[in-house]
Amino acid sequence: MIREITAQELDTERFIDEQVKEIDGAVGDGTAINALSGGVDSSTVTMLGHRALGKRLKTVFIENGLMREGESEQVAGLFGELGVMVEVVDAREEFFAALKGITDPEEKREAITQTFYRDVFGRLVKESGAKHLLQGTILTDVDETVAGIKRQHNVFEQIGIDPEDAFGYHIIEPLIQLRKDGVRKIGQALGLPAEVFERIPFPGPALSARVIGEATPKRIETVRKATVVVERLLKGTGAFQYMAILHEDRVTGLRDGKRDFGQQIELRCWDSVDARTATPTRLPFEILEQAAREIILEVPGIVSVTYNIASKPPSTLEAV
Amino acid sequence: MIREITAQELDTERFIDEQVKEIDGAVGDGTAINALSGGVDSSTVTMLGHRALGKRLKTVFIENGLMREGESEQVAGLFGELGVMVEVVDAREEFFAALKGITDPEEKREAITQTFYRDVFGRLVKESGAKHLLQGTILTDVDETVAGIKRQHNVFEQIGIDPEDAFGYHIIEPLIQLRKDGVRKIGQALGLPAEVFERIPFPGPALSARVIGEATPKRIETVRKATVVVERLLKGTGAFQYMAILHEDRVTGLRDGKRDFGQQIELRCWDSVDARTATPTRLPFEILEQAAREIILEVPGIVSVTYNIASKPPSTLEAV
Repeated sequence: MIREITAQELDTERFIDEQVKEIDGAVGDGTAINALSGGVDSSTVTMLGHRALGKRLKTVFIENGLMREGESEQVAGLFGELGVMVEVVDAREEFFAALKGITDPEEKREAITQTFYRDVFGRLVKESGAKHLLQGTILTDVDETVAGIKRQHNVFEQIGIDPEDAFGYHIIEPLIQLRKDGVRKIGQALGLPAEVFERIPFPGPALSARVIGEATPKRIETVRKATVVVERLLKGTGAFQYMAILHEDRVTGLRDGKRDFGQQIELRCWDSVDARTATPTRLPFEILEQAAREIILEVPGIVSVTYNIASKPPSTLEAV
Repeated sequence: MIREITAQELDTERFIDEQVKEIDGAVGDGTAINALSGGVDSSTVTMLGHRALGKRLKTVFIENGLMREGESEQVAGLFGELGVMVEVVDAREEFFAALKGITDPEEKREAITQTFYRDVFGRLVKESGAKHLLQGTILTDVDETVAGIKRQHNVFEQIGIDPEDAFGYHIIEPLIQLRKDGVRKIGQALGLPAEVFERIPFPGPALSARVIGEATPKRIETVRKATVVVERLLKGTGAFQYMAILHEDRVTGLRDGKRDFGQQIELRCWDSVDARTATPTRLPFEILEQAAREIILEVPGIVSVTYNIASKPPSTLEAV
């Protein structure tokens, strides 16, 4: 049973001091490695690990080809400014090879998880010689695993290290007693800038969760371009989350006066407190029509744009 | 060269008298047949033919299985009240057999046209013994055929009557000098009720044009149910056209708290003067959300509803 530390009772300076000492003590003369995604949890654990270990921590950012426009440069740049060296590992080919031919959402998710842990991160861990893995697990992840919402992950198994051989490997999870709001407080105290906390929720499988059907490099590039437009136009709305989704269905459009079958982008913008229930944001039609115009103009192949008008439940925030 | 009669110069009583005499003279002791769809043109030609020929005209309504809820009963009932006997021919199985496995929009259209003319109407013509076909062709149809927008139809060829054997068959097209507005005047003068003229535009391939992908009986039934909701809720908007479209893509929904892949309905509602350009109607979100709620509640398998926000061009009014 893990003892929860609520955001209210959390003494940030004391928590940081304790965790820094603990990480430092655990790693000792060795080295540690962690994977940074740019999200709040992994960003906070990176800062904590950096404070504890300095150069003894190797932080990698795995570029899987499914990120938003300029995301890896942004994350690496931001941590560079904070004095943390992030190694960007280009694994795009491996991810797209793993996704090839897969259309089922669950299988896509599984292919990405497997490629991330077993293939890419597993290799990086072994090559690095580090025996300590720093992970941004929070208490909510544990709860959800217990409840069966998330699958139980044995990280060693996931990264392809036999439990027998795993002797000597350690996982360090300094945020495991906290919830999201506690993590935010720690991250802020460690000097993370507001932009890390203001990121709208983004799914683990990244843009592959934003294409219905196969996630090819071309289709990911299409939804990436649409995402740029949507995030630019909806940033100021204060909505809980907003996204562009590339459909697989073909619809009729007109190009140079002739019928032409093109693709459709679906826009979703959600009002929600905790993601458990959500309603479509009542955006002004001026913004909706502008988004449609710009997406059709700027994204090759798109002839039609729709806006989600169903609530969660029975809809879900993400389409796949 | 056909001489146009504009709606302005049209003397309805004189036009009707002349056409009635002409039809009567052409058919003489013989019999005529026509296919009624319930649209303005075929409804008007039915009234004109009935006035000229009485029982010498056989009017058929071909139930292709792709009509809206209660449409054949409505049309037959309406003409029954006007004293015109309409024979409803159940050809659903033939149409669905022809549509089986076809997903390409143009091929669907072609399958419906072929089944209608060559198979069903062709057989009805031959069985009836009628040598005269009454058709609601208007001047705009002729223009569009010349311009290559519609395909040139040789009706005899279409209904499978060899041009050699076609000797003795006649086509009568009493509305060929008129445009839509002229036809409306004639229809009104012949006693057609307002509901015939107030019908929103509905495509030839009917509900098969409202499903992306294969038009199976089940998928047509799904979009038919959604169409009932959309037409009920949007009737009062004064919009040019509105429709429900069933997508083929699967999206995630929640059923009894569990993830479930369901289907999506896209709503379109157009502001337009002449269908050449159109913009999405700026419907109040209350109506959009109500439509989404009712569709999800009343239509099995639907977990998500979107609203079109792209204009024509580059979109088109219909999706396929």
